[in-house]
Amino acid sequence: MAKLKPLYDKIVVKRQEEQEQRTASGIIIPDTAKEKPQIGEVVAVGEGKRLNNGEIAPLRVKVGDKVVFNKYAGTEIELDGEKYLIMSEDEVLAILE
Amino acid sequence: MAKLKPLYDKIVVKRQEEQEQRTASGIIIPDTAKEKPQIGEVVAVGEGKRLNNGEIAPLRVKVGDKVVFNKYAGTEIELDGEKYLIMSEDEVLAILE
Amino acid sequence: MAKLKPLYDKIVVKRQEEQEQRTASGIIIPDTAKEKPQIGEVVAVGEGKRLNNGEIAPLRVKVGDKVVFNKYAGTEIELDGEKYLIMSEDEVLAILE
Amino acid sequence: MAKLKPLYDKIVVKRQEEQEQRTASGIIIPDTAKEKPQIGEVVAVGEGKRLNNGEIAPLRVKVGDKVVFNKYAGTEIELDGEKYLIMSEDEVLAILE
Amino acid sequence: MAKLKPLYDKIVVKRQEEQEQRTASGIIIPDTAKEKPQIGEVVAVGEGKRLNNGEIAPLRVKVGDKVVFNKYAGTEIELDGEKYLIMSEDEVLAILE
Amino acid sequence: MAKLKPLYDKIVVKRQEEQEQRTASGIIIPDTAKEKPQIGEVVAVGEGKRLNNGEIAPLRVKVGDKVVFNKYAGTEIELDGEKYLIMSEDEVLAILE
Amino acid sequence: MAKLKPLYDKIVVKRQEEQEQRTASGIIIPDTAKEKPQIGEVVAVGEGKRLNNGEIAPLRVKVGDKVVFNKYAGTEIELDGEKYLIMSEDEVLAILE
Repeated sequence: MAKLKPLYDKIVVKRQEEQEQRTASGIIIPDTAKEKPQIGEVVAVGEGKRLNNGEIAPLRVKVGDKVVFNKYAGTEIELDGEKYLIMSEDEVLAILE
Repeated sequence: MAKLKPLYDKIVVKRQEEQEQRTASGIIIPDTAKEKPQIGEVVAVGEGKRLNNGEIAPLRVKVGDKVVFNKYAGTEIELDGEKYLIMSEDEVLAILE
Repeated sequence: MAKLKPLYDKIVVKRQEEQEQRTASGIIIPDTAKEKPQIGEVVAVGEGKRLNNGEIAPLRVKVGDKVVFNKYAGTEIELDGEKYLIMSEDEVLAILE
Repeated sequence: MAKLKPLYDKIVVKRQEEQEQRTASGIIIPDTAKEKPQIGEVVAVGEGKRLNNGEIAPLRVKVGDKVVFNKYAGTEIELDGEKYLIMSEDEVLAILE
Repeated sequence: MAKLKPLYDKIVVKRQEEQEQRTASGIIIPDTAKEKPQIGEVVAVGEGKRLNNGEIAPLRVKVGDKVVFNKYAGTEIELDGEKYLIMSEDEVLAILE
Repeated sequence: MAKLKPLYDKIVVKRQEEQEQRTASGIIIPDTAKEKPQIGEVVAVGEGKRLNNGEIAPLRVKVGDKVVFNKYAGTEIELDGEKYLIMSEDEVLAILE
Repeated sequence: MAKLKPLYDKIVVKRQEEQEQRTASGIIIPDTAKEKPQIGEVVAVGEGKRLNNGEIAPLRVKVGDKVVFNKYAGTEIELDGEKYLIMSEDEVLAILE
């Protein structure tokens, strides 16, 4: 099976269904919010952000983390019938614990 | 209960009701202000801002701080029936003591 | 009484009334000026500007300084019946001595 | 035969036909995606990204890597009857393994 | 008498009357110029530009210098009946000797 | 005969005629390309890119290199009846070998 | 006679008449060029570009150099009946030798 290996500070996220989001986490995104945040699980992470001096700073999010991100974050891709989002770590608002 | 752990220089803020803001703090936001600042309490903070050289600079705001911020700062999220705002520390104007 | 503690390079300024500005300081803002500067007194200052390398550079303006700033600088807030402006030190044009 | 040698952090990519993309990799780009990512094979890479301090940081993608990138990434060129894309490594979302 | 002390890389300039500019310096701003430069005398300078690393780089213009600047440079202020401009040193095109 | 000596990271390129491009190099720019890249020969190069720290980083392209660049890259100039383009090295997509 | 001393990386250029440009240098600016470059002689240079770290990097162009620059580069000024352009060195495309 093909696998996605994101570059640098990019991560691959499996978005949770909206229904699943509400029951599993207790998070309800208010309908009045300007830009509804979304929840998903990190399935792959890059090796780190490339800094201005050329060094690689490791990422904070790990595979398996549940993350909150803005609705329009990332680029959607479908692999083996599953939809994923590729975004940079800066687009993650918080980790859900 | 699920908990939000913000990344880097992001913080989670519980916005005070406008009524509560006036009585509790003595702050009254003038109706004529172009962009009305808001008051809230910090409930979670990231581990620090990621600098250009890869180091992490600790934040100044702490959990429990009452902060003043612009009306449009942050992204709204609802967790277990409570509304929160996730914003970066740069969006905080001042701490209310 | 509540007190405002600005973050980093932010300062809190009590704007002088226009009438008071003219008589007290001898400064008259010309009516033809595109963007009329204003005068106020600094009542609180942050601990310093956060530099790219994470260090904190102390501010030059001090509590008690009379400062000149652009009309649209800062965010207005009302505390215990008094109006204040929170702005960054970069928005200060000059100190009035 | 002429060969393309990309500069610095630029890479040359041979885009796969859409049909080939689906069967070979199992990746199906959803029709509803705002900006459909594409798949291609890296055929040449630059010697590295020129950093602010003048050093050259080697690239992560290698010749032969299958990469995912946004639909509008890069500049199209045709060499000896074959179409190629020249893009910077930052435009690569992930490597497909 | 009140005095203006500009911050960092800001300077205070007393603009010369257009008539005075022509006779005193021999400079004539062409009527066809898109943005007419102006001439003035520096009456106060800041202590230096705050660099990214927090150091202060001293300014090149000194009190008494005659400077050429763009027509829309700076913010106008009137002090004790005299008009002044507060601008940053970067807005000065040249010193007139 | 006058000669052009480009500054810093600028280079002077003699654009090949479209006809010549096709026959000599085997490169055919597809008619459907959004922005047709062009081919030319480098006839002069600057001494290097001026970095933020003031150092000069030598260029990679050399006099005699055949380079591919975007159609709208550079500024056109005519010297002794010959047309040239002055562009920065960053506008070069690849060297053709 | 008044003299212009440009600051930092600024230079003063005496633009050549278009007629003079053609006969003296052999350069003919094509009528079809989007933005016609111009030729002029450098009559004064600043002491160097102020870098981010506060150091001064000396300029490459010298008084007496013939330079090529874009038509809209710089600010026009007239001194003792002569027209000049004040521009930054970055606006110079090449030196004509």
